[in-house]
Amino acid sequence: MMRRLLSALVLFGSTSLAGCATSGASSAAEVQRPRIEFTSKEKFDASAVPAYAGRHDETYAHIDANLASHLENLRRWVRQPSVSAQNQGVQEMATMLRDDLRKLGFKEAELVPTDGHPGVWGFYDAGAEKTLVVYMMYDVQPVEPTGWQVGAFDGALVDHALGKVLMARGATNQKGPERAFLNALESIIATRGKLPVNLMVVAEGEEELGSPHYPQVIDKYAERLKSASGVFFPFNSQGPSGDVSMFMGVKGILSFEMEARGSTQGGPMKSEVHGSLKAITDSPVWRLTQAMASLTTPDGNSIRVPGYYAPIRPPNEEEQRLVNGMLAEWRAREPGMRQSLGVQEWVDGMSGDDSLLRYLFDTTLNIDGMWAGYTGPGMKTILPHKATAKLDSRLVPDQTPEESLRLIRAHLDAQGFTDVETRLLSGYPPAQTSVSSSIVQAAISAYNKYGITPSVAPRLGGSAPYYIFTERLKLPLVAGGIGHGSGAHGPDEYMLIEPVAGSKIAGLAAIEKFYVDLLYALAEAR
Amino acid sequence: MMRRLLSALVLFGSTSLAGCATSGASSAAEVQRPRIEFTSKEKFDASAVPAYAGRHDETYAHIDANLASHLENLRRWVRQPSVSAQNQGVQEMATMLRDDLRKLGFKEAELVPTDGHPGVWGFYDAGAEKTLVVYMMYDVQPVEPTGWQVGAFDGALVDHALGKVLMARGATNQKGPERAFLNALESIIATRGKLPVNLMVVAEGEEELGSPHYPQVIDKYAERLKSASGVFFPFNSQGPSGDVSMFMGVKGILSFEMEARGSTQGGPMKSEVHGSLKAITDSPVWRLTQAMASLTTPDGNSIRVPGYYAPIRPPNEEEQRLVNGMLAEWRAREPGMRQSLGVQEWVDGMSGDDSLLRYLFDTTLNIDGMWAGYTGPGMKTILPHKATAKLDSRLVPDQTPEESLRLIRAHLDAQGFTDVETRLLSGYPPAQTSVSSSIVQAAISAYNKYGITPSVAPRLGGSAPYYIFTERLKLPLVAGGIGHGSGAHGPDEYMLIEPVAGSKIAGLAAIEKFYVDLLYALAEAR
Repeated sequence: MMRRLLSALVLFGSTSLAGCATSGASSAAEVQRPRIEFTSKEKFDASAVPAYAGRHDETYAHIDANLASHLENLRRWVRQPSVSAQNQGVQEMATMLRDDLRKLGFKEAELVPTDGHPGVWGFYDAGAEKTLVVYMMYDVQPVEPTGWQVGAFDGALVDHALGKVLMARGATNQKGPERAFLNALESIIATRGKLPVNLMVVAEGEEELGSPHYPQVIDKYAERLKSASGVFFPFNSQGPSGDVSMFMGVKGILSFEMEARGSTQGGPMKSEVHGSLKAITDSPVWRLTQAMASLTTPDGNSIRVPGYYAPIRPPNEEEQRLVNGMLAEWRAREPGMRQSLGVQEWVDGMSGDDSLLRYLFDTTLNIDGMWAGYTGPGMKTILPHKATAKLDSRLVPDQTPEESLRLIRAHLDAQGFTDVETRLLSGYPPAQTSVSSSIVQAAISAYNKYGITPSVAPRLGGSAPYYIFTERLKLPLVAGGIGHGSGAHGPDEYMLIEPVAGSKIAGLAAIEKFYVDLLYALAEAR
Repeated sequence: MMRRLLSALVLFGSTSLAGCATSGASSAAEVQRPRIEFTSKEKFDASAVPAYAGRHDETYAHIDANLASHLENLRRWVRQPSVSAQNQGVQEMATMLRDDLRKLGFKEAELVPTDGHPGVWGFYDAGAEKTLVVYMMYDVQPVEPTGWQVGAFDGALVDHALGKVLMARGATNQKGPERAFLNALESIIATRGKLPVNLMVVAEGEEELGSPHYPQVIDKYAERLKSASGVFFPFNSQGPSGDVSMFMGVKGILSFEMEARGSTQGGPMKSEVHGSLKAITDSPVWRLTQAMASLTTPDGNSIRVPGYYAPIRPPNEEEQRLVNGMLAEWRAREPGMRQSLGVQEWVDGMSGDDSLLRYLFDTTLNIDGMWAGYTGPGMKTILPHKATAKLDSRLVPDQTPEESLRLIRAHLDAQGFTDVETRLLSGYPPAQTSVSSSIVQAAISAYNKYGITPSVAPRLGGSAPYYIFTERLKLPLVAGGIGHGSGAHGPDEYMLIEPVAGSKIAGLAAIEKFYVDLLYALAEAR
C-alpha cells in the first residue's frame, strides 16, 4: 500500500485552518468531517539535528566500482513477478530474497510458512551491541492491462525527464530501494568484513493484500525482535525536486467487500433473469448501489455512517509541531502534485494547506472496484442476480478496523440493507513513532550529512502494517532513504537510477552510500 | 430482447386491483408508480373465433416424412454462432439465412447492408392476392461463461423432463421457430408447388442490440411492405403446460450507459491514483454510485426521475378486455414461473394478479451491468478514474426513448450530477396491434383448430422493434406458433423437439403443420 506519496505532501498554514471544516455539499448539516484544530504554533526543526560526521570512503568506492552489478541486482528482482493478489511468482521471489540474504552472509535465512504467502526471515550476526530490524515487502501490485510503455516485468531502463530510470512493477514499491539496501550491505561487508549492527530481516509477501498473515511471521521471532533498537524500511524518500519527507506514522486500513444477491426476500437467486422482469423483480444491483450510496454524501466525500468519525483523536502536540515544521519547504509543491496525478481540483476545491491536513488526519471511504452483470461490448438486457464492490477505509488514530466495519454494518442494517453482505478482506490499525527515537534521529542525521534536511510528517496517507512493530513490539520505525521513484500502484512505475546532470535527486550510488551512513549513525548513536 | 416470457404471464383479478398502487417502501409519499385502474369487466373470448377448417394432408405428410432433415436445419442454424454484441459469426449467419431463402425459391434474397450488421431481405412471389411480411432476427445473445450443461453452439439434443430438446443459444430465441417456419414453407412448396400467399422476409442481425439499424433495412422496402396484410414472427408460444399466449404489443426500450470520469471539476483525469488519495480526491466511482442511486427509491423499484411516469396512459378498453379474458386459464401459473426463475418473492411481495398488471403496464429502470476499478482476486487499493454502468428502461405507451432519456438527464443535472455522462445506446418506442386485425384473427383460428385456445395478452413485458411495422407502416403484427422453449438470455436455452407421451406441447412436426395452416387461414380470410 505504501508508495511514493511523500512527494505529494503539501503544506498548510497553521493560522488558516478555518476552511478545513468542510463536508458534502448537499448535507453539510447532516454530516461533518471532524474539524482539525491546532493549539501549538511550535515548529519541529530537523536541521537542528547534527549531521552524521562519519566517513566510509572505502565502502563508498566499492559501491562506485560495483554499480553495474548492483543495478543488475535491482533488475533481477523486478524481472521476477511477485503479484500477491494473483499468486504470480510469489514463491520464486521469496526464494530469491532468502538466497540473496544467504549470499550476503546472513547466519539465518529462511522462508517462514504462513496461512498465506510465506514470509522471509534473516539474521545477520555482527556481534554488535545494537540490532536493527529491517522490514521488507517482496510482493507487488497487479499489473494494469494498459498504460505501460514497457513490459511491467522486463526490467527496462528508460530515458525519463529526470534521468535514466528503471521502469517496472515494483521498481520503487518496493524492490528497488530494498535491493539497493542489500547492495549497501554487500559493500560494507566487502570492505569492512562485517556490518556495524546486527540485522533482523522480517519480510512479507502479502503487503499489497493488507498483510493478513504478517503477524504469523512476527509471532515466530517476537521475543528476539523486541531486543532491537528500531525498525528500518528502505524507501525512496526524495520527491522530484530532491526534497525528502519522513513520516512518523501510517494510516491503518479496513478492506472489505459488499455484495448483494437475490434471496428469499426477493431478486433472482439462481442466475440472471431477463431484464424485462425488472417490472416485478427486485434487483440486487440496485440494492448494492443504494446500500453503497447510503454510506456517503452525494459528493462521495463525507461518510454518513453514524459514529464513524467519533474515535478520531485531535492531532497531538508532536504531530502539530511536525506539521508546523513542514510548512516552509513544502508549501510550493502541491500544484505539481496535482499535475502529476492528473487531478485539477481537490475535494471541495480545497487549497493546498487544507488538503495536507485532510490527507494526514482524515479517514476515508473509497471504492476500489465494483462489478455486476454484463460488462462487455454492446448490451445484454439482463437483471443480474448479484453485484459486488471492493472498498477500503484508511484509518487514523484511534480508529480500528473491527469497530469501523461494525459501524458500517450497523448503519446498513439500520437503513434496511440487511440483504447486502459485508465481508472483511483485511484490516489493521494505524501506527505511530516518536520523532525523538534513536532510529529517527539517526536517519535525520544521515539526511543532514547529504544536505537534505527532511521535512518530517506526522504520518503518511497510505497504509502499512507498522502497528505490528510500533504497537505490539513497541519499536520505533522509520521508512527512509534518499532516491526517487513514482507510479506505484499504476502504470509506468519507475525508480530513478542515474539522474540528469545538476539534479538534486540521488542516483543508485548515492542511495546506497546513504544506507551505509545510516547504519553507522545508528551503531554510533549514544 | 424477446423470449419465452409468455409462459410467465400471470393472471390478475379484475376486482382486486387496490393492492397495485405500491411504491418504494421508504418513499411512498415521494414517488408513486402509476395506479393501474380498470373500468371494464368485459372479457375477450378467443374461443369465439371459428377454428380454421382447412386440411392440407399431403403437406402434413411431407413434414412427417422429412422431419429428420427438418430438425437438422434447426441444428445447422444454432451451430452457427451469431452473437451480435460480440460480432461473432454474424455475417456467416446472414449468409446462411439468405442462401436458405434462395433454396426455397424466393425470387429475391439478399443481404441488406446497414451501418451495423446486415439485414436480410427475401421476396417470395406466389402470384397471390395477399402478402405476408415475415419478421426475423438472426442474431443471439452472448453466451454466459458458466451454467451451460452443453456447448452453447453444439446443437445438442438433450433429454429433458418435457421430452427431447434442442439445447443451444438461439434454440428458442429465435432460430428454432424461425427455421421451423421455413421448413413448413418447404413442405408446402414441395407438395403444392407454391405458397398460398406472397412473402416478404425482413430479417435483422441486431435485435439483441436494440435494433439500432433495422430502420435502414425497412427504409429500402417500405413502399412494398405497406401493401402487405400484416406481419408474422414465428414464435414458440406454448408454455410448459401446453397453453398458448398471444400478445398484441411489446414494450419499447431505452438502453443507455452512465459514466463518471475525473474532470476539471475534480477526480483523477488520466488514470487511477492511489486509494489513500481519497482523503482529498473526488471519486468518479462514488459519483456514479450516487448518481445512479438518485434515480430510484432505496428498494430500487420506483423511479425518482420527475415526470418519468407522466406519459403513461391508462390501459384502454381493448387492453382491459384482453387482460380480463386471460384470467381463467392463467391464474395458476405464477408460482411455477417464480420457481423456474428462482425468484421467491416479487417486488413488495406482490400477489400473482398484481404482478401481471405491473409486468404488463409498468415501465422499468434496470441495471444490466456496471464496472469500475479493480475486479480481480484479492485487493488493489486504487481510486479509479472512471466508472461505467449499462441501464435499460422498458417503455409502455405513450413513453418514448427520447423523452425518457431527456428526463433522466434533466434529473441528474438538477441533482448536481452534471459530471456524470449519459450515453444513448439504442431505443425505440412500444408497439401495439388490434386483436381485430386479419392476421390476429387468422392466428387465433389456427390455434383453435389445434384445440389450443390462446389467452391473448395486451402486450409482452419484453421489447421488440415492432413499432417499425405497427407505428410506421401501420401493419398489424403477430408473433405466434405452437411449440415451447425456455432459457432465452440465460444458460441452457432450449426448444422442445419431441415431447414425452401425453404432452400437450407440440413437437417440431406439429409446430410446422400449424405454420402451414396459419398461412392458408390468412390466404383464405375474407
